[in-house]
Amino acid sequence: MADTTFTDAERRAMSTALALATMPGVPLGPNPRVGCVLLDDDGAIVAEGHHRGAGTAHAEADALARAGDQARGTTAVVTLEPCNHTGRTGPCAQALVDAGVRRVVFAQPDPNPLATGGTETLRAAGVEVVGGLLHDEARAVNRAWTFAVEHGRPFVTWKFATTLDGRSAAADGTSRWVSGAAARRDTHRLRAECDVMLVGTNTVEVDDPALTVRDIDDEPFPHQPLRAVMGERDLDPGRRIFDPALSLGAESVHLRTRDPRAALAELFARGRQHVFLEGGPTLAAAFLTAGLVDEVVAYVSPMLLGAGQAAVADLGITTIADALRPTVTDVTVLDAPGEPPNVRLTMTPTTSKGA
Amino acid sequence: MADTTFTDAERRAMSTALALATMPGVPLGPNPRVGCVLLDDDGAIVAEGHHRGAGTAHAEADALARAGDQARGTTAVVTLEPCNHTGRTGPCAQALVDAGVRRVVFAQPDPNPLATGGTETLRAAGVEVVGGLLHDEARAVNRAWTFAVEHGRPFVTWKFATTLDGRSAAADGTSRWVSGAAARRDTHRLRAECDVMLVGTNTVEVDDPALTVRDIDDEPFPHQPLRAVMGERDLDPGRRIFDPALSLGAESVHLRTRDPRAALAELFARGRQHVFLEGGPTLAAAFLTAGLVDEVVAYVSPMLLGAGQAAVADLGITTIADALRPTVTDVTVLDAPGEPPNVRLTMTPTTSKGA
Repeated sequence: MADTTFTDAERRAMSTALALATMPGVPLGPNPRVGCVLLDDDGAIVAEGHHRGAGTAHAEADALARAGDQARGTTAVVTLEPCNHTGRTGPCAQALVDAGVRRVVFAQPDPNPLATGGTETLRAAGVEVVGGLLHDEARAVNRAWTFAVEHGRPFVTWKFATTLDGRSAAADGTSRWVSGAAARRDTHRLRAECDVMLVGTNTVEVDDPALTVRDIDDEPFPHQPLRAVMGERDLDPGRRIFDPALSLGAESVHLRTRDPRAALAELFARGRQHVFLEGGPTLAAAFLTAGLVDEVVAYVSPMLLGAGQAAVADLGITTIADALRPTVTDVTVLDAPGEPPNVRLTMTPTTSKGA
Repeated sequence: MADTTFTDAERRAMSTALALATMPGVPLGPNPRVGCVLLDDDGAIVAEGHHRGAGTAHAEADALARAGDQARGTTAVVTLEPCNHTGRTGPCAQALVDAGVRRVVFAQPDPNPLATGGTETLRAAGVEVVGGLLHDEARAVNRAWTFAVEHGRPFVTWKFATTLDGRSAAADGTSRWVSGAAARRDTHRLRAECDVMLVGTNTVEVDDPALTVRDIDDEPFPHQPLRAVMGERDLDPGRRIFDPALSLGAESVHLRTRDPRAALAELFARGRQHVFLEGGPTLAAAFLTAGLVDEVVAYVSPMLLGAGQAAVADLGITTIADALRPTVTDVTVLDAPGEPPNVRLTMTPTTSKGA
């Protein structure tokens, strides 16, 4: 028997709402990306709306404004449970009630304890509310935001590049380039999906990276992630990470701690939700052993060095049974004309934990 | 304009001859695998033949015997230039002349200085001879044999298994299993394509491998490669590599040298053409730095150890510009139910050289 919880029109509208949520130009944070479609009794679209970033109208408010009087009696199909929270804009649950919306279908329940309760407000006003349609897809759209709200710390993606024999640099410290050009472009694409790039003081002193997003299609990238360096050592303010001329608009911060948990707490307090960890082997080992890596992206280059800097520092593992065995979610061969293929493995550690 | 050097019937016949050469059950060495098809004037097949291993009839003789009197006036399509050499069987060039064959089409010229000259013998007897049809395919069928004949030493495939961070064993020496089950099965398949498996004395002492081909489809595998260990250290005769009860019919040899070139010379003198190098990082580094690795097969397992045995020992490389950058010929993801995917990279070093 077919599931009659949702109409076919509502299912189609939720797909549309997800597409609206992820329209090009919508920032990945700090707010969740949300889409909304208003349907009349016949399942026809009355209005569409989506959120365009902090300080702008929520998706429901955007759709209601476009619908005007036509909103009365409609079904609102929203990718996230309507909020019950007065922030920079008013609560959406009440706005839907005031507009006379008859039924609300949402995908993901709001995990934010400050914003939850929309369903109760709507139901108390006599609006029919059903959640869970395309729930997993909606959650994926706001993966880092959802994680950060649920765990009280940013989601951490650790990226590293290695030769086939596990080296991230040669014996003399040279590392340009362990990865091929296609892998480096791919890294910039992943950087652009985060709101912080984090390295240690040693990386700043040795490699002096600019830590900006470059080489992606819509260059210059409009939302440069925060450039963060952690560690207690004083740094030369002339390093590229602090150079306004190289910033492309990105801010920089020096977190004066060697403790991964403290660094993440400070970044979370600054509203950051997705850390791209690009530090050296020591910083990576500190996050791994603390269980603070939520995703691993490894670029393996078909190169042999035989000596040099290990891609990962000591993790305190002495026997094969204790090896870290992250779950592989994707294996992709990255190829560019005239260069050897690199292999990208995307993995989820089984050891990651909340704050 | 179409190439009229070969008729369509000859092209089809050469494909058939290549298939005959690689029939199941035909050993990979020490003789080349060869197929032969006799065509009449209309391009119809008169007889087929193939070589079945040292001491048996050559492909041409096999086809001629099947054709009998029908061989007169035919075109012989052969994957390898007919030999001019009296070994355990007579020279094929003369046999083709004696049988009244009118034209010979072959794929690969015979690289063997003892056997070459077939074309001259045939032409001197008035037989038309044309070579080069599907040359590369024919060469690939006898890759190791061709290499060994041309370079005066066996072809060397170096296989290693590594974690994502370049470790082949944990700090306490445990290494079962760095690779997944699918990768280990794949290794047995590759072992079966070689005629020697080579390790160092240290591997025999530490890992005590049986070095037999197992876990492949046609178990027990009919042609176990030679099990060779190299190094000057005396070994306990009770190690598994010397145990007749575990041999599955394989022979064992201890090569009393630490010099890769000397070890290969001894194996070549024993008629061996394809070494599967499975030793530890030190032996691998010795072969690599001597330019005696012709193919690299790396199995990368999505595991992190942070410490332990490096997959490759010091190669004398100190800066990134000098890294070994083998040419990648294949990247394959090896997957088995219930286990993480391993990535196999097959590569050709740019540094390999002859004896």
